[in-house]
Amino acid sequence: MTREPVTIVTYDWVPDFPRGYVRDIRARWACEEAGIPYRTETVPLMDRTQDHLAMQPFHQVPILKDGDLTLFESGAMVLHLAKDSPALMPDDDTLRTHVTEWSFAALNSIEPPITGWIFGGKFKKNEKAGEDFGGWMHQRLDQLDAYLADKEWIVGDRFTAADIILTEVLRPARDEGALDRHPTTKAYVERATARPAFQRAHQAQMDHWTEADRKRAAKT
Amino acid sequence: MTREPVTIVTYDWVPDFPRGYVRDIRARWACEEAGIPYRTETVPLMDRTQDHLAMQPFHQVPILKDGDLTLFESGAMVLHLAKDSPALMPDDDTLRTHVTEWSFAALNSIEPPITGWIFGGKFKKNEKAGEDFGGWMHQRLDQLDAYLADKEWIVGDRFTAADIILTEVLRPARDEGALDRHPTTKAYVERATARPAFQRAHQAQMDHWTEADRKRAAKT
Repeated sequence: MTREPVTIVTYDWVPDFPRGYVRDIRARWACEEAGIPYRTETVPLMDRTQDHLAMQPFHQVPILKDGDLTLFESGAMVLHLAKDSPALMPDDDTLRTHVTEWSFAALNSIEPPITGWIFGGKFKKNEKAGEDFGGWMHQRLDQLDAYLADKEWIVGDRFTAADIILTEVLRPARDEGALDRHPTTKAYVERATARPAFQRAHQAQMDHWTEADRKRAAKT
Repeated sequence: MTREPVTIVTYDWVPDFPRGYVRDIRARWACEEAGIPYRTETVPLMDRTQDHLAMQPFHQVPILKDGDLTLFESGAMVLHLAKDSPALMPDDDTLRTHVTEWSFAALNSIEPPITGWIFGGKFKKNEKAGEDFGGWMHQRLDQLDAYLADKEWIVGDRFTAADIILTEVLRPARDEGALDRHPTTKAYVERATARPAFQRAHQAQMDHWTEADRKRAAKT
């Protein structure tokens, strides 16, 4: 079955620090794993438009267009791409439900303390917030480390959509050193990001910013 | 079709401040809307057990048991209960995808700044964290206010599972006064919590704690 390409909407340009982390990588990675062809479109980062707001009520990216469907929220996007993709989603109904469960767990049980630690502590240079959210984050990561002890992937002994979401939630924490005391979780992130599909998605995003720099330079 | 009752697992007791907010209310509310019979079981709050950890890797509640399926994460739980319940989920595939989208939006775009404001600011008495997360929270709530301007419910002109999740994410913010400058969102929460199914779910949770107090008093 040939699938029509989907469109992933991302920013026209971003500064250096979010490069490699902009959440369009989640949709790119899902497409790469599932063999779904995709193209990209851009919305301006600096002067955000009403057209952009009409697609994404929080004025963010990514946005996915798939035929008549326009979708925001990277978690929903990855599950949508996974729905009919055996590479990302088991057949079994119970396992499918656990893929949804772990997608929510990544985004609502694990990411909030990581975001608090990075945004409230590091980005806002608030030492006490760093300690408060850090304590919560390390508790959750200890629990995740224990859960992952005998597992290669998070659901059902195979790579699924939930691994994309969980890895992406953990990757900024790893890159800030927070996984150094959670070796099992760190090894899990290394395993996931070593996959060729992740590597291609990451490279594609980095190439997009290189091209964005080139276009910017050509204008000035 | 008669449905077998599901089991909602919650704590055996909690102190006063989380009463009415423990996330089992999300599953109770979904059951009440959908007409799904449920019973409750408890796990100890104070001396958390290995049996509890085996069901919920972060040692929290709620947990849902539905036949052979044991499920954690209230977002996944509400979507699971909604899947075959016309009262909570439209038939149309595109609308179903938007219900998932807004469930993730509530839990990952709206809740993290609210949690940061409440946990990092109020609970940890950190004024700067309150301001930092408060600024982010009010930006998101302004955007939500604009989005809700012409809507009764968040997806497709009808009440869905996404309204349960979104309302529950917003309710602590409303009760801490954060919605006073977001009147459309505040009215949305009032509309949702006025529903008889919410009222029954809330009362059932509060009755559970009253009974827990009674059992505690009888022991001592």
